[in-house]
Amino acid sequence: MPLILETIVTTTNPDGSVHLVPFGLIVEGDDYIVAPFRPSPTIANLERHPFLAAAAPRDIRVIAGCVTGRRDWATVACDVIEGVRLQDCFAHMELAVREVAPDELRPRFRCRPVHSAMHEPFLGYNRAQAAVLEAAILSTRLHLLTPQKIRSEMAYLEIAIDKTAGPTEREAWQWIEAKIRGGLGTTDENQSVQMKAGP
Amino acid sequence: MPLILETIVTTTNPDGSVHLVPFGLIVEGDDYIVAPFRPSPTIANLERHPFLAAAAPRDIRVIAGCVTGRRDWATVACDVIEGVRLQDCFAHMELAVREVAPDELRPRFRCRPVHSAMHEPFLGYNRAQAAVLEAAILSTRLHLLTPQKIRSEMAYLEIAIDKTAGPTEREAWQWIEAKIRGGLGTTDENQSVQMKAGP
Repeated sequence: MPLILETIVTTTNPDGSVHLVPFGLIVEGDDYIVAPFRPSPTIANLERHPFLAAAAPRDIRVIAGCVTGRRDWATVACDVIEGVRLQDCFAHMELAVREVAPDELRPRFRCRPVHSAMHEPFLGYNRAQAAVLEAAILSTRLHLLTPQKIRSEMAYLEIAIDKTAGPTEREAWQWIEAKIRGGLGTTDENQSVQMKAGP
Repeated sequence: MPLILETIVTTTNPDGSVHLVPFGLIVEGDDYIVAPFRPSPTIANLERHPFLAAAAPRDIRVIAGCVTGRRDWATVACDVIEGVRLQDCFAHMELAVREVAPDELRPRFRCRPVHSAMHEPFLGYNRAQAAVLEAAILSTRLHLLTPQKIRSEMAYLEIAIDKTAGPTEREAWQWIEAKIRGGLGTTDENQSVQMKAGP
């Protein structure tokens, strides 16, 4: 399997507004493959305007927020392409679609960076941020897993939160915990939000 | 608990050679706390020359390598302080010790960055890199855990490897797997290598 980078992808909606979504980009040599499952606004947006931005958020609440109904994160205009990118990021790239492999379920957009820029130094890995990312993905798969499995994964991930989280990571964790508690305790209302991270 | 950043810390040995070690820096406002457990060459080095560099490795094999006996990673001279830093990194900072809280077990060096620089864009999070980091830490705690617990954590972490690793992450994973297999199957020879990541 190739490397997958979890990013915040931004595309432009028909009305000019931004569609901002956590997304796993598949790395293939110099290309990045964007392969969303249908239905996806990203697919329609890329078919209309074949450009996107991908950014690595500094604040892990952006990812936790997107899977818990908090999608209003600040963006700024891209440098080269028409569109916007996440503002608060370590780095971002702007990509152009080079080729589309059509598919009923999951079309693949092969993209090539036309620009990238560094914004803030990435000085180290944080285990709590990684745990938030795992919990965010888990929170989109509640309908596929037993409550026992979900609880045991959350208990494992919480160890890194307890040991290495700052206030930001802790808040992100709480958002996801509340969603999962709701999903386990009640009907599955939240589960229609799908994080498209990884294959 | 404060945020902890997992970095590669470099200090200078008495003979001028580099001591390169994965280390979790505790973030306190503008300061970074380095708190190694005794005995540690980092402690002796900082007492003699109170400066260090900390870098975020691009190649996760650097972390996996340090806990599996592979410590020979390329370094380059620092920009401001006397010393070297990991060469292949997203960013690095150079720090000066401002204050030492002495302790029999775990002295705390309060450090302030005097310089930082970005080298490569951090474009996204990778779940496999995070899994390698967790496995690296696990591999230093084999003597504290049951074989069953170790196997179940490795099985969980391997999911992210299978789904999101590139060749580099896969090789890092194999190094740690081999160490853990050895640790579970034979005596605990490898376990004296201690990764000082997190509290």
